[in-house]
Amino acid sequence: MNTHTPAILPNEPSNETLQEWDRVHQLHPWASMDDWQGYDNMLVDCAEGIYLWDGDGKRFIDGPGGMWCVQIGYGRGEMADAIAAQVRKLAYTSPFTNTTQPSAVLARKLAEMAPGDLNNVFFTTGGSTAVDTALRTMHFMNNRLGRPEKKIVISREKAYHGSTYLAHSVTGKEREKSRFDIEKRLVRFLPDVNPYNRPEGMSVEAWCDEKVADLEKIIAEVGADRIGAFIAEPILSSGGVIVPPPGYHKRTFDICKAHDILYISDEVVTGFGRLGHWFASEDVFGIQPDMITTAKGLTSGYLPLGACIIADHVLERCASPDDPTLFSNGYTYSAHPVSCVAALTNIEIFEREGILQHVREVTPVFQGRLRALKDRFPLVGDARGMGLLGCVDCKAPNFAAEKRLGQMIDDACEEKGLLVRPFANMAVFSPPLIITAKQIDQMFDILESALEKVSAQVASEGGL
Amino acid sequence: MNTHTPAILPNEPSNETLQEWDRVHQLHPWASMDDWQGYDNMLVDCAEGIYLWDGDGKRFIDGPGGMWCVQIGYGRGEMADAIAAQVRKLAYTSPFTNTTQPSAVLARKLAEMAPGDLNNVFFTTGGSTAVDTALRTMHFMNNRLGRPEKKIVISREKAYHGSTYLAHSVTGKEREKSRFDIEKRLVRFLPDVNPYNRPEGMSVEAWCDEKVADLEKIIAEVGADRIGAFIAEPILSSGGVIVPPPGYHKRTFDICKAHDILYISDEVVTGFGRLGHWFASEDVFGIQPDMITTAKGLTSGYLPLGACIIADHVLERCASPDDPTLFSNGYTYSAHPVSCVAALTNIEIFEREGILQHVREVTPVFQGRLRALKDRFPLVGDARGMGLLGCVDCKAPNFAAEKRLGQMIDDACEEKGLLVRPFANMAVFSPPLIITAKQIDQMFDILESALEKVSAQVASEGGL
Repeated sequence: MNTHTPAILPNEPSNETLQEWDRVHQLHPWASMDDWQGYDNMLVDCAEGIYLWDGDGKRFIDGPGGMWCVQIGYGRGEMADAIAAQVRKLAYTSPFTNTTQPSAVLARKLAEMAPGDLNNVFFTTGGSTAVDTALRTMHFMNNRLGRPEKKIVISREKAYHGSTYLAHSVTGKEREKSRFDIEKRLVRFLPDVNPYNRPEGMSVEAWCDEKVADLEKIIAEVGADRIGAFIAEPILSSGGVIVPPPGYHKRTFDICKAHDILYISDEVVTGFGRLGHWFASEDVFGIQPDMITTAKGLTSGYLPLGACIIADHVLERCASPDDPTLFSNGYTYSAHPVSCVAALTNIEIFEREGILQHVREVTPVFQGRLRALKDRFPLVGDARGMGLLGCVDCKAPNFAAEKRLGQMIDDACEEKGLLVRPFANMAVFSPPLIITAKQIDQMFDILESALEKVSAQVASEGGL
Repeated sequence: MNTHTPAILPNEPSNETLQEWDRVHQLHPWASMDDWQGYDNMLVDCAEGIYLWDGDGKRFIDGPGGMWCVQIGYGRGEMADAIAAQVRKLAYTSPFTNTTQPSAVLARKLAEMAPGDLNNVFFTTGGSTAVDTALRTMHFMNNRLGRPEKKIVISREKAYHGSTYLAHSVTGKEREKSRFDIEKRLVRFLPDVNPYNRPEGMSVEAWCDEKVADLEKIIAEVGADRIGAFIAEPILSSGGVIVPPPGYHKRTFDICKAHDILYISDEVVTGFGRLGHWFASEDVFGIQPDMITTAKGLTSGYLPLGACIIADHVLERCASPDDPTLFSNGYTYSAHPVSCVAALTNIEIFEREGILQHVREVTPVFQGRLRALKDRFPLVGDARGMGLLGCVDCKAPNFAAEKRLGQMIDDACEEKGLLVRPFANMAVFSPPLIITAKQIDQMFDILESALEKVSAQVASEGGL
């Protein structure tokens, strides 16, 4: 607007006013540009535990847990108090020249949690900047080692690694629907690793062999001397909670090691308790990556923070005692002291309440109810997951019909007070980790009743 | 480390322990890789107003204002209270599908503050991601318009635009000291615009003509059909507070408009009161950019937040009613409700205390003391700035000696309780905007005494 003396805002704009301001002034991530300013996002007012309330006071179980992140649940007074205390004490200082108690303690803590010699923490503002930093660290190392051609990144179809230009470039999903550019010369994609999509009659073991062979084949084609890194989510989360076949992680890791290709484990979703451990790489999948990226659960989403955790042996190869070189990467808000306090308090709550152990205890309930859906509903082609991460993958006779199913399930769940995250024909969920066995049952009861409704709709439309 | 059951941390690790943890576990932005883990960053303990205290309890005036960001000063209880209240009410919700009161109100507020039809706010996590988003929006628009070749970005030597891969690619400083890659095909750099560096005997007007001609020349060389955007800080801040010659902004802006080249004004430093206005583009330099990037002062650094503010006429050209396209860019922590509350409270404090007006009132004191340094100290080649942004640019007989001067001034200031930000032969400062005229005098008194000391050192070393 042309005015430069903003009018005083009413203290409590109505929901309608808020929705209007949001619609005409806020461009949201993943906005539908075919209907720009034409639709409303859900107005969320407040939240407590595993529940949130919309602007009309309706309560929902938060199936997506924010966005795979609110591990300790909402409304923690202890978080508010610790954050406020740090704001009063030291709200900011530059990470370029200074350090603080919260960032030094948190760096030490993360080094303790991470496997192997992953002892170096570079703080960022979230997952995308953590991935951007990991890939740039690979660039730096290979330039330092005098092999500037070794920069190509191997990623996978359906992988999601963020949305800076570089992080988006190694992301294997939703390309077809986007008009953003990617840096094609820097990346190669391996085909889908989802065991659900293996050919009829093929064993999971044979599927794993094929997926491992895909990696070997691309290395042979491109040449290991041109490949800098393999980046992989232990579970491809927003691609549809794809759990690679057993043995896949270790075998692909060993291949990378054999070719001096850095293995970057993107644990933005799988870290911080989602699978019952601080990090899943070693404890669940038996590998010690060269770098781990983390965000989301690191603060339970309470404040923005991410980190790229780097192995000693990587930074030793970046060091240059003979040459004044700066690691000229980083952000004003790297290691923000208030965000670091949020992470430390989050970790304290995890430890005091035994949240990792709790996740391991309720996982059988969650995964049991999840897998039962496949037997009960013909609509459900696959029901898969691990820890407190789940996906129902639905099928219909044709693709156009199929891709409506996620949204239909979401709508039916919302009516009954549960949010899920729809992706095309899938609905995924990753509730707050504090969810009790009883609440898991409530969640799946609603999901079942939604699937009943959608099944009936599908039937009444002649199978869509 | 290999342990997965972190030891309980002592409640108050000593300063020495904190420094050790920081040194061996935190990789800082711009770390010197020639001395990796070999030096300590300054441990900052707490802060209040324009002052901060180190781990030993020594007080400093915060000359850099955090990092060009702590506009309202440190230790604001009102910020702590507002932040804590939002953490209790709603610590997080996904910006991909939901909206909140704080983000809708803040989007509306920023649209009011921004000039022209800059009515659309895309929230990010800081300046780098705001720039990454601005450039990607240009990609999106030109792909939508069927001109995929129109993607090259014109930037300038000594510009700083951030450190994602894409933001770093359009940054024109410190390339020579870095081992990070940039995307060279996407960018062209214009030569230095600093009037201080114009040839002996050339008028500032003739210098401006030459700088404007540099832009016209590069457009003629590359072709406007291949140039997507011109990105420019109104004042090149970390390049050394370079104020382009009068008339430069309007003339370069008009050239961009004539060639349908998007003008991106990077106001991460100049916005939020640094020059006495919410944004400097129109109020100070008379232009209405196509996009403005903002961060830092937006929350006074209290919490991470950035934004890319986009003109209606840009998004109208991105809309695609005929085609289901997603604006598939954004972050888990876009529009974080707690960060948005920090920004709103920051703006309330600005308005209630009349901080913009205050900056305009004390600017003559600040700039008067700054400019007097040049007359008094032969060491000072240039003393320049605008608003509460200043730089002393020092000279010595040779380059190797010269580039030590910034650090020498910083060391001498620190002894006497003032922090400045050294860059090679320069020291820059951008104190909290609440600084009083008396405190400005105290700051410059210390700076003068430091310059005396450094001048004597230089003389004793035979002019270095």
